[in-house]
Amino acid sequence: MLFRSDNITPTCPEILAAIIAANDGDSAAYGNDSLTQGLDAAFAGYFETSTRVHPVATGIAANALALATAMPAPAACVCHAQAHVYATESGAPEFFAGGGKLLPLPGAHGKLWPEDLAKFLAAQDPARLQAPPIAVVSITQGSEAGTAYALDHIRAIAALCRRHGLALHMDGARFSNAFVALGCSPAEMSWRAGVDILSYGATKNGAMCADAVVIFEASPHAAALDRWLGHRRLRAGQVFSKMRYVSAQLHAMVSGDLAARNAAHANAMARRLTDGLLAVPGVVLVEPTDINEVFVRLPASALSGLARGGYAVKGRPEDPGLVRLVTGWSSTTAQVDGFVAAAASGAAAAA
Amino acid sequence: MLFRSDNITPTCPEILAAIIAANDGDSAAYGNDSLTQGLDAAFAGYFETSTRVHPVATGIAANALALATAMPAPAACVCHAQAHVYATESGAPEFFAGGGKLLPLPGAHGKLWPEDLAKFLAAQDPARLQAPPIAVVSITQGSEAGTAYALDHIRAIAALCRRHGLALHMDGARFSNAFVALGCSPAEMSWRAGVDILSYGATKNGAMCADAVVIFEASPHAAALDRWLGHRRLRAGQVFSKMRYVSAQLHAMVSGDLAARNAAHANAMARRLTDGLLAVPGVVLVEPTDINEVFVRLPASALSGLARGGYAVKGRPEDPGLVRLVTGWSSTTAQVDGFVAAAASGAAAAA
Amino acid sequence: MLFRSDNITPTCPEILAAIIAANDGDSAAYGNDSLTQGLDAAFAGYFETSTRVHPVATGIAANALALATAMPAPAACVCHAQAHVYATESGAPEFFAGGGKLLPLPGAHGKLWPEDLAKFLAAQDPARLQAPPIAVVSITQGSEAGTAYALDHIRAIAALCRRHGLALHMDGARFSNAFVALGCSPAEMSWRAGVDILSYGATKNGAMCADAVVIFEASPHAAALDRWLGHRRLRAGQVFSKMRYVSAQLHAMVSGDLAARNAAHANAMARRLTDGLLAVPGVVLVEPTDINEVFVRLPASALSGLARGGYAVKGRPEDPGLVRLVTGWSSTTAQVDGFVAAAASGAAAAA
Amino acid sequence: MLFRSDNITPTCPEILAAIIAANDGDSAAYGNDSLTQGLDAAFAGYFETSTRVHPVATGIAANALALATAMPAPAACVCHAQAHVYATESGAPEFFAGGGKLLPLPGAHGKLWPEDLAKFLAAQDPARLQAPPIAVVSITQGSEAGTAYALDHIRAIAALCRRHGLALHMDGARFSNAFVALGCSPAEMSWRAGVDILSYGATKNGAMCADAVVIFEASPHAAALDRWLGHRRLRAGQVFSKMRYVSAQLHAMVSGDLAARNAAHANAMARRLTDGLLAVPGVVLVEPTDINEVFVRLPASALSGLARGGYAVKGRPEDPGLVRLVTGWSSTTAQVDGFVAAAASGAAAAA
Repeated sequence: MLFRSDNITPTCPEILAAIIAANDGDSAAYGNDSLTQGLDAAFAGYFETSTRVHPVATGIAANALALATAMPAPAACVCHAQAHVYATESGAPEFFAGGGKLLPLPGAHGKLWPEDLAKFLAAQDPARLQAPPIAVVSITQGSEAGTAYALDHIRAIAALCRRHGLALHMDGARFSNAFVALGCSPAEMSWRAGVDILSYGATKNGAMCADAVVIFEASPHAAALDRWLGHRRLRAGQVFSKMRYVSAQLHAMVSGDLAARNAAHANAMARRLTDGLLAVPGVVLVEPTDINEVFVRLPASALSGLARGGYAVKGRPEDPGLVRLVTGWSSTTAQVDGFVAAAASGAAAAA
Repeated sequence: MLFRSDNITPTCPEILAAIIAANDGDSAAYGNDSLTQGLDAAFAGYFETSTRVHPVATGIAANALALATAMPAPAACVCHAQAHVYATESGAPEFFAGGGKLLPLPGAHGKLWPEDLAKFLAAQDPARLQAPPIAVVSITQGSEAGTAYALDHIRAIAALCRRHGLALHMDGARFSNAFVALGCSPAEMSWRAGVDILSYGATKNGAMCADAVVIFEASPHAAALDRWLGHRRLRAGQVFSKMRYVSAQLHAMVSGDLAARNAAHANAMARRLTDGLLAVPGVVLVEPTDINEVFVRLPASALSGLARGGYAVKGRPEDPGLVRLVTGWSSTTAQVDGFVAAAASGAAAAA
Repeated sequence: MLFRSDNITPTCPEILAAIIAANDGDSAAYGNDSLTQGLDAAFAGYFETSTRVHPVATGIAANALALATAMPAPAACVCHAQAHVYATESGAPEFFAGGGKLLPLPGAHGKLWPEDLAKFLAAQDPARLQAPPIAVVSITQGSEAGTAYALDHIRAIAALCRRHGLALHMDGARFSNAFVALGCSPAEMSWRAGVDILSYGATKNGAMCADAVVIFEASPHAAALDRWLGHRRLRAGQVFSKMRYVSAQLHAMVSGDLAARNAAHANAMARRLTDGLLAVPGVVLVEPTDINEVFVRLPASALSGLARGGYAVKGRPEDPGLVRLVTGWSSTTAQVDGFVAAAASGAAAAA
Repeated sequence: MLFRSDNITPTCPEILAAIIAANDGDSAAYGNDSLTQGLDAAFAGYFETSTRVHPVATGIAANALALATAMPAPAACVCHAQAHVYATESGAPEFFAGGGKLLPLPGAHGKLWPEDLAKFLAAQDPARLQAPPIAVVSITQGSEAGTAYALDHIRAIAALCRRHGLALHMDGARFSNAFVALGCSPAEMSWRAGVDILSYGATKNGAMCADAVVIFEASPHAAALDRWLGHRRLRAGQVFSKMRYVSAQLHAMVSGDLAARNAAHANAMARRLTDGLLAVPGVVLVEPTDINEVFVRLPASALSGLARGGYAVKGRPEDPGLVRLVTGWSSTTAQVDGFVAAAASGAAAAA
């Protein structure tokens, strides 16, 4: 199971401590507690701008609610064909939007590219009733291919969105891994680059069950996006009666440098894994290792070595050597080095 | 805020300990962990029958998913007009069902009564397209009026459901409070009485964020209810990436006597509160205190005494003396006695 | 079947002629034909104001689309408990709205009353997430009780809507019967009285299959209501490939005095029916006969007479003497007089 | 506009006559009339098997309702990437299904190919919650590329569906054009080949506004597909109050040889158009002309000639020479020959 996903990691000590600290006597229910009431301010500090924060418990809920409010029926969303929102959420955004449509585009390195998007948007005819009107573009940062959009890339997509009157959504399940990789601030990678609404992910980065939809009030779409989102969230079963425990996790994550620290560690472990594997004969890097995901093609010899070492590595059904490896806040250099050594021993045995 | 709701209570020590114990190294994501995989067996033991357990994080999610699978579009559900599913969930069941309809009936003590239900069902014409076909009846046990259906009452409703081919759903947000009140087993109050699908509530009873949809395999509807419910749950953003933390809470709740113990304590505190308040001149009991909710009408004098004592008591907008008080697993006799004393002092001052 | 409904009437000659006239060679599909393109102008003339007309083929589609655009998820609509949108459309508005909620109010004569509505709206707390936010009020004119709201009544409801920021929808399935009854113009009874969006009904008044959602551009909600309604309509399967045939019916209905003439005839027949029946011993008028519907309670003797005369009269299951009789554009005085005579003969035989 | 679509054609005389004949006195509403009640029997005769016929007014409604009942939430449908249901209905099937997902596959000649489908279905893991469970496969016959599936091809797809427990839906917007092209009976091309549920299209083939969902009772899925479809239809605004006028069209279409005759004529005109255009220098046939659609690439010279002749021909935005031409029941040889002559004159002028 090692490196299967960052979802397999436990809760980090700081988050657990925050949960335990929140477990103190009675507290108002359904988000009327002081922790939840303080989230807007905490995120405003973290993002250096006014925000509206809607805590939820899963990344799918964050994405589905964000897109549902951004593409009210019968509108559509443009995203990458590998985007989690399109490919791995069982239709959650379409369901939450009351039947919306996601329009997938291909693109190298798991990214939407401005020229492709420009062409696609230019070809739309809003008066044509046979296709749903596009209301939002969604990008994943860091992407499903383990890459990170450069700031200029995001800005170029945002400029297209503005020109066409669309909102720009960022699926930030690995938001912290990405801004750490870019060496920029959370603000620079989000609203300053033109993002209107963000799915902020804390769970993969060390939280127990805490994500959030963040709306930046600087966005021209902010009022429309925020209207009724609280009711949508309640209706979705995402307003917890004991909301304090989710909000406590979010506070901990954006206080001090926890998010950056956890993400930087995970990224470093992925970098070490990539470097180690690339030294193994026959290993090919499939995508650049920008964040905490490693996409490599492993030769049969390396796969054998890993299997002998007790590592269960799962390639794609159609391409067994194509492997995704994900590190997390709790990954250790010993884990990385052991994994690499097993792959290397297999390759050596075959030589 | 005291006695405002059982949702304001903290997490009980046993549940917190279970969460902390689950925080041990890597664990498979999205419900493939051993704790989640063990839920069916744990609940089977607890309910003395085969079950299919779908953990979720909120009672609204449990109800909405249970009703959505029980009333697939375009079907309808009969429930009490005060039922949480109808009156306090912002349309969640209708939304999750893709536009279903809840048909509310009145009824004393927050209960559906068999004679009313029989008449209502008999008046339906399934061939009439102008009304949605009824597929499920939902009852809340303990009810929103703080009462508990007797076992015979549940059985009579279940018999009507069977006769009309309907599923019987139980909203068990306060399931434990009710079976403790009846002095029966969880099994007797659920599938043995004819319940097909249960929203099992743990959060109000001491958990942090853990409820579950429980389908009893003995039900003739079990296969249809369970089909695709996992996918519905994922699509609803209720399959947590780190599911182990929700499942750990459920395990703790149905292991040993935690659920019964917490509920019995809350019920006893409610009973003590009722007894104390009834000794205050002018106080009228509005509903029998079967579980952990007290519905009383307080005279102005008692309200004044409470206000002077620092207790913020909220009546109904249209009836300020009509007050709901809810005790929880963490309520203390000191809290109860202090509250009663404040009310009594107000009454005494007015005399 | 006589007087069972105005839906049983055939298509009137003028409408049939318009359909036949439209059957002339090729014509652009999906509403791009000249007849459909001319609807906005035709209705603007008829309603003496700019309009956006969305033709559909059924009244349910008109209501469901109008309410769906007026109460985007997760919002709610207030209506009368007997309103067709609530009671007789199998959940269509909720479905089209992606899971919205209709909140039914009681009210004499099938009408919402301003004082009740004011109290209901005042009791809402928009910040409370447990109830859906109200976005629209729907009234039926003429009502399901065969009555017509006076202009002042509509204006009072509209004033409440404006105060609370709500849209006002009018279900005008019998719109023409009502404005004829009031002796006012279509404009006076709609946008001039504060209606924002209208389900304009032509089918019951002599068309074959033609209704329309009409948005008045004078409404402050017009832009929001009209946005994407075309796409909603296409997605609902209500943009006909050969739209000209629906549009031709609407043109005929609002050209000249056809709508008023048909409706006036139907109303007169209902008046004659009421007058005739009231002369029969034991007959009680249950609602004032404002439009083309007669609500009477018939004694058993009259029912017997009607049965002997071959008239199949259906009362309510729970009240067999309570009968709704509906006249139409094609009803004849002979039909009315024959019906009355049969009822009278029964009463006479019993005397 | 000539040859733009078969939706631009008028209503054929036989259908108009049937509508006029239906306009005879009162008739029960909402499908309780004798014409509608007789549809099951009429289609049973036409298809040589028991059927359940659900008349609707548009092809989009037929497809959306058929797929909604075949893929109840949260299930998915596999279809061709060019399928009307996926590409040209603004998300109607997803909306009617309460948020379902269409999974598009590529395939030559607008067809799903058994080997691709087999591979796709084999790669699915029903236990994987991140992807919606597949419940139905939809094919379009004749296809959006103007081609017709051979009977063996349909049977091979049906066999795959049976193996995987899926329903097979056929979008038969041009059903008659296809069975005429294959020289087989309606029965052979539908249920005998393994089709479970059919969108039967009459509108493009000469009707005014009449399509139908047809469920074959021989299908193992028939009971599940038919359950509540009437209610779904009412809720969708597709149960017309004066249903007789839609049903009359369907009766006329399946009585005698009208459907086959109209379709055979349209096919012959398409064949003549293809033959004529292929004689023009530089014209390339892009897809075989199996039915009444011609896909050709026209050289600039031919396009000029057509423009000079007053023919407005619209290619694809990205490929202006790629033209779809559609003939209909009312196309004439003079129209075809005039069109071809204009293209030829352009080519000649350029030579």
